[in-house]
Order: sequence, then structure tokens, then C-alpha cells
Amino acid sequence: MAKEKADELKITRRDEDYSRWYLDIVDRAKLAEESGVRGCMIIRPEGFAIWEKMQQTLDKMFKDTGHTNAYFPLFIPVSYFSKEAKHVSGFAKECAVVTHHRLKVTESGEITVDPEAELGEPLVVRPTSETIIWSTYRRWIQSYRDLPLLLNQWANICRWELRTRPFLRTTEFLWQEGHTAHATFEEAEAETKQMLGIYKTFVEQYLAIPVVAGRKTENEKFPGAEHTYAIETMTQDRRAIQVGTSHNLGTTFSKAFDVTYLSAEGTQEYPFATSWGITTRMIGALIMVHSDDQGFVCPPRIAPLQVIGVPIYRKEAEKEQVLTRFREIEEQFKVTGAFSFKFDSRDNLSPGFKFNDWELKGIPLRLEIGPRDLANGKAVLVRRDTGEKIIVEQSELESQIKILLDAIQANLFQKAQEFQQQNTYFVETYPEFQQGIEEKPGFYIAYFDGSPDDEEKIKEETKATGRCIPFNEQQEVGECFYTGKQTTQRVIFARAY
Amino acid sequence: MAKEKADELKITRRDEDYSRWYLDIVDRAKLAEESGVRGCMIIRPEGFAIWEKMQQTLDKMFKDTGHTNAYFPLFIPVSYFSKEAKHVSGFAKECAVVTHHRLKVTESGEITVDPEAELGEPLVVRPTSETIIWSTYRRWIQSYRDLPLLLNQWANICRWELRTRPFLRTTEFLWQEGHTAHATFEEAEAETKQMLGIYKTFVEQYLAIPVVAGRKTENEKFPGAEHTYAIETMTQDRRAIQVGTSHNLGTTFSKAFDVTYLSAEGTQEYPFATSWGITTRMIGALIMVHSDDQGFVCPPRIAPLQVIGVPIYRKEAEKEQVLTRFREIEEQFKVTGAFSFKFDSRDNLSPGFKFNDWELKGIPLRLEIGPRDLANGKAVLVRRDTGEKIIVEQSELESQIKILLDAIQANLFQKAQEFQQQNTYFVETYPEFQQGIEEKPGFYIAYFDGSPDDEEKIKEETKATGRCIPFNEQQEVGECFYTGKQTTQRVIFARAY
Repeated sequence: MAKEKADELKITRRDEDYSRWYLDIVDRAKLAEESGVRGCMIIRPEGFAIWEKMQQTLDKMFKDTGHTNAYFPLFIPVSYFSKEAKHVSGFAKECAVVTHHRLKVTESGEITVDPEAELGEPLVVRPTSETIIWSTYRRWIQSYRDLPLLLNQWANICRWELRTRPFLRTTEFLWQEGHTAHATFEEAEAETKQMLGIYKTFVEQYLAIPVVAGRKTENEKFPGAEHTYAIETMTQDRRAIQVGTSHNLGTTFSKAFDVTYLSAEGTQEYPFATSWGITTRMIGALIMVHSDDQGFVCPPRIAPLQVIGVPIYRKEAEKEQVLTRFREIEEQFKVTGAFSFKFDSRDNLSPGFKFNDWELKGIPLRLEIGPRDLANGKAVLVRRDTGEKIIVEQSELESQIKILLDAIQANLFQKAQEFQQQNTYFVETYPEFQQGIEEKPGFYIAYFDGSPDDEEKIKEETKATGRCIPFNEQQEVGECFYTGKQTTQRVIFARAY
Repeated sequence: MAKEKADELKITRRDEDYSRWYLDIVDRAKLAEESGVRGCMIIRPEGFAIWEKMQQTLDKMFKDTGHTNAYFPLFIPVSYFSKEAKHVSGFAKECAVVTHHRLKVTESGEITVDPEAELGEPLVVRPTSETIIWSTYRRWIQSYRDLPLLLNQWANICRWELRTRPFLRTTEFLWQEGHTAHATFEEAEAETKQMLGIYKTFVEQYLAIPVVAGRKTENEKFPGAEHTYAIETMTQDRRAIQVGTSHNLGTTFSKAFDVTYLSAEGTQEYPFATSWGITTRMIGALIMVHSDDQGFVCPPRIAPLQVIGVPIYRKEAEKEQVLTRFREIEEQFKVTGAFSFKFDSRDNLSPGFKFNDWELKGIPLRLEIGPRDLANGKAVLVRRDTGEKIIVEQSELESQIKILLDAIQANLFQKAQEFQQQNTYFVETYPEFQQGIEEKPGFYIAYFDGSPDDEEKIKEETKATGRCIPFNEQQEVGECFYTGKQTTQRVIFARAY
């Protein structure tokens, strides 16, 4: 039993096999697991609690900026996709298609699709909802008084991916998709950037993940968008991972679905659209950015459980005393509600096993109290991020925990930021880039004004893509690393998830 | 314009066409609308905000009783359904079946299903999740220490309904489904009843809907359940509508999916299951129970917007003064957060139009302030439930509003309860029942111990079904109204939605 139990806590090291390390954390920290249904994951309670905190925090940020939630159908008739050509080629290819509405039991007792129940028009399980939403906005938008229309939807999405990996890429995933309509291009552009800003704030302040915000290159933008903006971060294997996108869709969808409004001046105009989203992939980024060889590391502000208590005792008499103290502490913390706390009263496991177990699960702070601590009024706090042990007075427990949780949050952000900076390079020539990306993976900033075809060739030759054109770039002129032409545009290239 | 606007507010009267009245309210109060996708509705922001309040309140009640949330796949392989025969016949018939994973563009430019992308095994879009969840519990339940397992999921569900009606019956709908596993039948039974109790508390206290709680007859129970419990209420056309169910599933699913656990005594045992759910149908019941010929009536405790301000003015000078006062009031209410409030500053509409508009939308209380009120420090409050006007001191606005919101909540419950009591009859003989249900629709309580076949015959003959066997029945003996046999079982029969 002891051996078997200890094995539950063993994970692959990052330097041994990074992919395996990631999968081990997802599995052993009980965040998600394969479902047996191709490419679909089960989000376990521990993982889903993180998603719930993400939802609550973002939902409030969306509502504070005037957005409300609604719900649109899961199924989209194939013909809706035909209305917007670029969108079709981007989304309507690898998708789940509902063709029948009935099963039947055969004479031999097997269950099969009933051929007589074929749908007149196949339905696509939504890969994104622009088409169904803009077919609805046609009814909702008549006058300039109906604008701006600021809606969001929390929903499940399906994209038939060839290779899947829990959180990062799954056939079904959860997300939110904002869909707004505006009177002018400028308003739509401002909304697009505002929402990217909200994502950046959320990801940096809650997930402690530093991001680069910027515009996507032509090759990487959303099918049907004028501009796509994104935030990107760096994983510990020094790849890029996109954690949120925001699109200015111009009049692409209002034209495709024939949506017009009567302006204040009495003319019929096409409204301008935006869409923006984040997904359960964010949990994948969270794992990849902060975790270590002991397991998951979860920043305090997004951790469903922030402090775990582990009672230390040997004798029965000690046990009752220590547990009583933990019960008192639990009550005390519950009253103030300053952070989430529980203690591990499992009787069949050693403290050492519990330490490892809760480290693996990424709980930011551990509180240990044993008989000697009871006697002298002390307690031990252990940081998940550094392993540091801090001995504090029990009377100051609450204030010390708050200080430490803030310190952990700040340290995780700073560590990730330093790592990102250390692995970001500026390159002047293409050969320099080719050699760099092979030998030292990371973010490569280069002057680039090549065509989409050029970018495609770079991808073929180096497996790296243009991740974004960062904001706030100095408008200095340089020489494009691929074409040699003069340009002010600097692009981050990286291999990406 | 004025005429056209006024038409927006016109709805069918209940006594004219009850079905049409219901659809008019859903449409004009902007709660939901047809999507153009067969049987699927769009839940509009006004309707979705109610669902969000339902979710938040229930989610807290679930968590307070030890449940956590998780997420399981949308797609269920057909073979999973084959494992439980009753469940198949109940659920796997009329459903959305995904058979392909790719579309292609034909030479003529049309988009069609790619015949080369047929799935090896068709996938059913979940009509309920017992099968996928119990195929997972097989991995999660090993020992008695893993029990009870108390999970819930908020999700979308698809059942291919022939006739649909917004909220009440739609192809896709939203719900929560609790799925728990227990060591004993008794524990499962206690959980089943606890969750029904939570539904009853929520529905009565928040939705102001009085319900009858009881056990379902054999004909009406969930496919695969030992016991199904339900809460039922009465609509204004005196039909029954089920608003929540809770099932004791016994070992049906643990046996079908071969889930066993090691007991404390060292034996292998099958765990006992429950499942319980409420759906967006609850919004349909909410509309049907309280609304009137002026439109939607929403109980204060579930209303997203509880108080609507309508400024009254004629001249420009008055306008600015009145609007300033409303802005002050808005600030004041925001600080205390005692209830939700906004005021209608639309400039192109008359106060009369606004009154009707907000009545149609079901806002519980209206606050009117005009120039004369400003002068004498008064304000007018108008109750949505009774139309009563109450003149109050502006200095007492907040406390008066709180009192009135409580009074409205209580009155709606009481009215609905009286209506239900007035339309509930006790019948001794079947002919008496046949005549009654035709002439005076309602709940008919009768002694009944007939077989499922008898109940089926009653349904054919009267279009009424056994709604439930109410709890807390006196165990008196009577004569079955259908078979004449002695029995203690009393059943409520009614025509149902």
C-alpha cells in the first residue's frame, strides 16, 4: 500500500520529457482526464474549480464594461457557414456533423442510426458562433438606438482536432465568446482593444502569467477578421502559447447576414462587429508556465484552495489536541473569509505523503502544526513556489498567510517574466534566426514585412510562426530579416502550442 | 411610430388563447426567441439573466451540501447506451447523432458532408449523462473511502422533440445534473430526498411557486431508476408542470458499468447512485404561474432587475431636475446594494409607454418621480403584482422598497397557492374524475393502486397522467378509483405540460 501510494505522486521531470511531465501533472493533480470519447476530456472537480474562478472573475469584468450574457444554439445549419467564404474554409471543415435524429434497435439487438431519420440539412456542432449570432442580430439591430450591442456567451465548442492534449487542444472545450455590434469601425476597434486589455489584466493579475499583447499577422488572424489581437506567453519549454484573442471583424458578418441599421441621419448602414474569447486552454497555459518537477503550482489568486493544513502527531493524545486546534483555525478563517482553507484529516496517510500530495496538487501554502507548536504557540508555513519554511506566531497566522499569499503571487509573476525576458532575442538576419530557434528556443523579435507566402515558407523551414506584432513598438526603421526591405514592423516569431 | 411602438406591447389575453399568451410574453418580454434552427431557442439577455440568478442560488445550495462541479463530454458513443436496456429505450431514440467529422466544398461550390469522414462509431449528443459519468466513476471509485462521490454538472442537453415550445420543451436546453455515488441504498435515498428538498425550497422561496412534492408512479419514473421524486406545480390553465426531479438509481448504473468498491469489511460491493436535475423549463413554469394579461410577472427574489425608475417631466427645465434626482437615487442604491435598480432615461418615449413596457417585462416595482414630487419630497411606487400605487417619503424610499419587494414576493406565492388549492379536487370514482377533468381542469387526488397498464389506459381515455404520489399522505385506506381494490396510495392525476 505505501509503495503503491507513493507511486501515485511520482511524475516525469521536465528535462526528461516535457510533454509527459505536462500530462502527468494533469493526471496526478486530478485536473482532467481522457474520457474514452475521442479527443474529449473530463474536467475533474479540481480542474473545474479553477475554471469556475476564471469564469466568475472574467464575467464580472465583462459586466462592469457593459456586457450581458445570452445563449445561442449549439447546432448551426451548414448553410449558415456558406454565407461567409473565409469563415467556411477556416471553420467548417473539421467539425462534428449531426446528420440523423434517431437511433433504432436492430433485430439482433444492436443499436444503430435509423436511416429513415436523416436530417434535411446537416447541422454543425458550433466551432464558433459568429454565423448563428449574426443571423440573429439581423432581427435585433434596426436602428442606431440598438447599438452598441454588447453580448457574451459561455458555452461548449467543438473542433475536430487530429492531435489532442488535455486543456491545450481538445475536440470539445469550454470557452466564452463575446459578440458585439457597433455603429463605427473606430468603436469596434476600441472594443476589440478594450477586451484584449481585460484579458491581459486578468491573465497577469490573477494567473500571474506575463503576456505580450499585439496584433496577429495576416496568416494568423481569424478567418473573416480585419484585425486579430492576441496575448501570448511562453511555456517552460520556451514555446509560445496564445491565451486570448480579440477580433475586429469589420462588416464581414453584417454583410454576409445582411444586417443593416437606420443611422441617426436616416441612412441604412452596416454595423461593425467584434468577437473575443478565452477557453479552457488557459488552464493548460497556467500549468505550463508555473509548475515544477514536484507537480502543479497554482497562483494564490486563482487557486480554489489557497491554504492546506497538515496536522502533525504521533500519539492518539496528540492527535486529538492538534485536530482540535485545526478545527478552531478553520472556524476562525471561515468567519473572516480572507482566503480558502481546509485541513487534511486523513488518518491512513503519513504527514510526508500529505506534503507531497498537496504539493503535487499545487496548493500555494501549507500550514503545519504539531504538539511542540501547540506548546509554544508557533506554526510552520511552507511556500509551494519556493519550498521556504516560515515559522510564525499562531496569533499572527491570518495576517502572515495574507502576506505570504501576496508574496507567492508576485514571485510567480516575476519568475515567469524573467524567464520570458531571458528567452527573448532580437535577430537581424534570417540565418541567425534559423540557427537560434534550433539551438535556443524562445521568442525571436525581427523586422519583418514579408508576404503571407513568406511567412508560410518561414513556418515550413523553421516550424516557427509569427506570434504577434507587439503593441507600443518604437516606430524605428529596420531591414526585414527575410526580404531585406525597409520596414517599421517588428514581429515575434516562435514555435507555438 | 407611436402606433407601431404601442403594438410592440400588445399581447394576447389568457382567456383568449393561453398558448398564444405564453408565446407573446416570451417574445415581448424578450426572454427567448426561435432561432431558425429546428426546435432550438435563443435565450435572450433578459431571459438568461434569470437563468444566471437561478444558477447562482442553486449552485450555492449544492455546494453548501458538499457537492462540487465537474464537466463531462457532450458526445456519448452509441455503445454506452447499449449497456443499460431501460435507459436506451428511454433516451437513445430521439436524439442528435453525429456521424461525420468533416464537411467539404463540392465542385459546384456547395458545402456538404464529406462521405469519407464517417465516424467508426456514431456519437450521441448527450440527452442525459448517466452513461458517460458512470463509465468514468468506474475509474474513480475503488474503495469505501472514495464514497460518497457528490458531483454536479451545468450543461447543455439535446433531446429531439417533435413539438417544441420555448423553455418548456426545446431540442437543446440548459440544465444541471447531479450524479452521486453512495455506499448504501439508504444513503442514496437520503441524498435523493435531500436534493428534492433543496429544489422545493428554492422554487418556493425564490420563484414563489408552490409545489407538491412526491414520488412518481411506475409509468412516469426515470428509465433505470428505483424511485423518482418530483415537484409539480399548476399553471394558470390548470395543468401540471414538473419543475424538478430527483432519482434514486439503485445499482442500475454501477452494475451496467461494472463499478465496484472495496468495503471497509474487505468485500467488493456495487455503489448506489442518484441523479437529480432542473432545467431552463423552470423559466417556463415561472412565466406560466405568475404572469398576467399585461405581461410577465417576475418575483422580486429572482428578478434580475427589481426596481425600475421612470422620470416624469414635460419641460426641459423639469427634465434636468428630475433626472438629477434619479441619478442621486441610483448612486444611493448602488452604495447599499440592497436591490437592483435602474431608471429609464429614453428620451423618445412617453412615461405611459414606459409604464407598459416595464410591466410587460415583469419588473416587480416601479418608482415614479415628477416635478411635484421633487417639490414635496414624495415618490410614487407602483406594484407590478397588484397595480397598487403607494406614495412614500423620498427619505424613506429604500426601506419602503424593501418592504414592498418582500410583500410582492409573499403575495405572488400566496396567490399561486390559493389558485392551486382552489383547483385541487378529491375524487372517489373514475366517472367522477372523467367528468371533472373535462369540465374543471386541475389536480385530481384519487386512491389508486392500478397497474402501469391501467395508468396507460387512463392516459388514453382522459389525457391525464399520474403526476405524483404526494409525501406526508395520511395512510388511510380507500378504494382505488379505477380497480376498486383497497389501497392507501393516493395519486394526483392531471393533464400536464
